[in-house]
Amino acid sequence: MVGNNLTTVNLISPIQELMPLVEARMQKFTKSYPIDFRVALEKLLVYGGKRIRPKLNLLVGRMLNANSDQLITSAAAIELLHTATLVHDDLIDGALFRRGTPTLNSSWNAAKTVLAGDLLFSHSAKLAAETGSLEIIRLFADTLATIVNGEVTQLFEKSEPTNPEKYYRRIYAKTASLFEAATKAAAYLSPVDEDVIDAVSMFGREIGMAFQIVDDVLDFTGKQSTVGKPVASDLRQGLITLPVFYYIESHPNDPAIEKSLNMVNGGLADDAITERLVESIRDSGAIERALEEARRYSERGIRALEELPANNEQGVLIELALELTERKS
Amino acid sequence: MVGNNLTTVNLISPIQELMPLVEARMQKFTKSYPIDFRVALEKLLVYGGKRIRPKLNLLVGRMLNANSDQLITSAAAIELLHTATLVHDDLIDGALFRRGTPTLNSSWNAAKTVLAGDLLFSHSAKLAAETGSLEIIRLFADTLATIVNGEVTQLFEKSEPTNPEKYYRRIYAKTASLFEAATKAAAYLSPVDEDVIDAVSMFGREIGMAFQIVDDVLDFTGKQSTVGKPVASDLRQGLITLPVFYYIESHPNDPAIEKSLNMVNGGLADDAITERLVESIRDSGAIERALEEARRYSERGIRALEELPANNEQGVLIELALELTERKS
Repeated sequence: MVGNNLTTVNLISPIQELMPLVEARMQKFTKSYPIDFRVALEKLLVYGGKRIRPKLNLLVGRMLNANSDQLITSAAAIELLHTATLVHDDLIDGALFRRGTPTLNSSWNAAKTVLAGDLLFSHSAKLAAETGSLEIIRLFADTLATIVNGEVTQLFEKSEPTNPEKYYRRIYAKTASLFEAATKAAAYLSPVDEDVIDAVSMFGREIGMAFQIVDDVLDFTGKQSTVGKPVASDLRQGLITLPVFYYIESHPNDPAIEKSLNMVNGGLADDAITERLVESIRDSGAIERALEEARRYSERGIRALEELPANNEQGVLIELALELTERKS
Repeated sequence: MVGNNLTTVNLISPIQELMPLVEARMQKFTKSYPIDFRVALEKLLVYGGKRIRPKLNLLVGRMLNANSDQLITSAAAIELLHTATLVHDDLIDGALFRRGTPTLNSSWNAAKTVLAGDLLFSHSAKLAAETGSLEIIRLFADTLATIVNGEVTQLFEKSEPTNPEKYYRRIYAKTASLFEAATKAAAYLSPVDEDVIDAVSMFGREIGMAFQIVDDVLDFTGKQSTVGKPVASDLRQGLITLPVFYYIESHPNDPAIEKSLNMVNGGLADDAITERLVESIRDSGAIERALEEARRYSERGIRALEELPANNEQGVLIELALELTERKS
């Protein structure tokens, strides 16, 4: 099972008929726009990645017998919210590629890119309101605040985290909060009690943490062609992720670390130092330690889910959690 | 009465005790941020202008016996939504001053400014959700979509409007939609029927239209020191407002118009041509025609409100509507 491609029919079959409805609901607002804008929005929404968040939402909803129409709407709202944050993120980071394709800000000026993101936010909010669930509306507003708070902290705090706690807070804000919202929203739409809501929330949160750790590992181990951005792009931006923490722990006196991070803070760029540091990190066992940590998160999430009665969707969710943790891209 | 300063005690007395609570609710989220960011946010929120939208919301709510706590929350949500759109607007327009004080983007890079706006959006959405009213949540999400749609149209449509209809649609999206939302939201929180909701919505919408027409007139007649931005800044950005439409109608063959607008579209800048055009517009009677149109909107709004039983708040709302239309800055 492990290592299958995320788009295998096996994996998505319980929600296969729902995904096109989610896509349609995400795109229904684009029709009325000036053609340039419409084309760009549709491209953004069509080549939008693996759709992990809406799939989690749908699978949990099916597992718990959620109302289908509300579920489709919530899945579309989540993916629009996610896409909106990516559009502004890429602008903020000056990223030119995402998933191997050019970002909006690579061809548009800041004005148009900001508006595109705002538009996606507004339509995400409209869809959230369409679910008619106050709990979901509150959850999505809180999650957006969490995500933006995380970015503010990252941008305004001068010093990098010196312990993994800040790293974990950062990846919760960046990724796990929306995974958690995806699974929790599905439970809100289902005839279940508080324990079940807590269990699927934990599942979403923990596999979200695992997903981001793996993402940060792939930034070191992946090929640029697969990951769609330069190797060690986080480190090159002065961002310390889990493999770097582990490396610092075991090599506190390696001068390459300070030099690499100093480069970001206005020092002279020396790619050779960063390249050597990346090699050192790869050879140090830090990658393996980080992956073990990702597995621990994933396992905690799966255990929480396994406390609920087993059914087909639960099996698929567990398979998905394993694939997300073992993926190579 | 007419021409009084908007901050007269007389005017705000029925809601005097509520405004500090609105301010506090708007600012309660800023406490936890890095100091630089917090100071900038608080400055943005404290020197935030005339607070017309929350005042409209509170006055209508008091007039209709809305629940006070929900009303305060909705007033704070409206002003945060308004402030968020201004932050992104100023970034998009490259505006360096608003209300005579430097904009966020004048001292911050695009990244920080985008995030500040996103943060305000997220907290506006949280407050909207806190009202617990699905109608208000839907209204605010729809209004945000309307505002952003208006900006997208303005940015992506190549040609300027050739008739006033597009101008009216633009100022509805830009201003009147949120005035309408402010009054309508108050009615949603009150024990009233559909007719009353429609009447106060119309009041908000029409005086919002009047307010923006007057704003566009002041762009021609105001002094830079009072308006807080260069005279005829719209025209200099290639934006045709109502006085310009009226001028074109009466002077279809003045070559200065095409020249002025061409300058924006990559032609050679010639401030002298624009200065002369501004003088011509001022002398043409176009300003007076635009102000008459603003008065007609304002009167329609007031008539709608007067269909409801008279009380103190209603009187203050009418006085406010007149002041907004007759203001000189």
